[in-house]
Amino acid sequence: MSYAAESLPAANKAYQANFGSKASCEPFSRLKCIELTQDQQGSLPLPPGKKVAIVGCMDARLDTSAATGLHEGDSHHIRNAGGRAAEALRSLVISQELLGTREIIVIHHTDCGMLTFKSERLHDLIKKRVDPAHYPAIEQLAALEFGDLDKSITDDVAFLKAHPLILKETVVSGYKYHVETGELEKVV
Amino acid sequence: MSYAAESLPAANKAYQANFGSKASCEPFSRLKCIELTQDQQGSLPLPPGKKVAIVGCMDARLDTSAATGLHEGDSHHIRNAGGRAAEALRSLVISQELLGTREIIVIHHTDCGMLTFKSERLHDLIKKRVDPAHYPAIEQLAALEFGDLDKSITDDVAFLKAHPLILKETVVSGYKYHVETGELEKVV
Repeated sequence: MSYAAESLPAANKAYQANFGSKASCEPFSRLKCIELTQDQQGSLPLPPGKKVAIVGCMDARLDTSAATGLHEGDSHHIRNAGGRAAEALRSLVISQELLGTREIIVIHHTDCGMLTFKSERLHDLIKKRVDPAHYPAIEQLAALEFGDLDKSITDDVAFLKAHPLILKETVVSGYKYHVETGELEKVV
Repeated sequence: MSYAAESLPAANKAYQANFGSKASCEPFSRLKCIELTQDQQGSLPLPPGKKVAIVGCMDARLDTSAATGLHEGDSHHIRNAGGRAAEALRSLVISQELLGTREIIVIHHTDCGMLTFKSERLHDLIKKRVDPAHYPAIEQLAALEFGDLDKSITDDVAFLKAHPLILKETVVSGYKYHVETGELEKVV
């Protein structure tokens, strides 16, 4: 069995039942403030209302909507292992050029798995279970791990501020999410 | 001004105030069911409790936690423009090899921006504002757009099922999220 087969249908039915109502919203949500009806939530426009794109880690303990107050309709949520900006570049260019976002919020977090290994260890683990024909593909897989959390945040913000394909007027900030308390601490 | 400077601090303070309590949870949340205290939510383990990794679009109208019932501690949330599996590969390998996930849920959605343009149009837009020295980098940027929503979902599920770096025993399913109603419709 799987989560998709066992639990997702009921969870999604509950979400649909509250779709657009206050009951599905959280403190400081834009949806709650203006008390959207189902029709209103169902016709939210494609471009993010707050003109924000979040670049955050995929980590299970981080909810980039709940922790920031950026709910349905407000912002793009781009997430990958570590919340690395370089891998988010394609999505950010589309977000800015076609959907009008002008602010980027980078979120990495305490106790991140990316602080605990090196690419070589990941490569060795995968090699144990695949045909040697795939070794070259594995060796090309850069894990984008990091050794220092604050530095990964300042590095990614600097990368975005300097990147020629990111609009010059973009406001870029970087936050450290504390998985122990829910705090978003501004780093840069 | 920016969302980060103006609104994020208060929104995050509200999140911290409810951290671990029922008040911050949603219907069918695991957190709600077991009524976590702040200490409990603050010490959730690094590996996702439901062993799931979501690959979803960055779209502002999609909340991959609320719509699936996969909340803090449950699953990885990997998101990019379109929810494309190929770009999620690095994150998925880390998710499976180092953090034990064994299920992948692909979520694309109706009214997706990726259905509305071609890479060439995106390239032309960027070229209007950057130095010609960057044209080669722009031309290498594949937007990974698609022309058919159902096909993009079945293609991405097939890509993951066939990929040598993805564990053979992985349960992979693909859903279409309806931005008009909140429904997750199973496609494959």
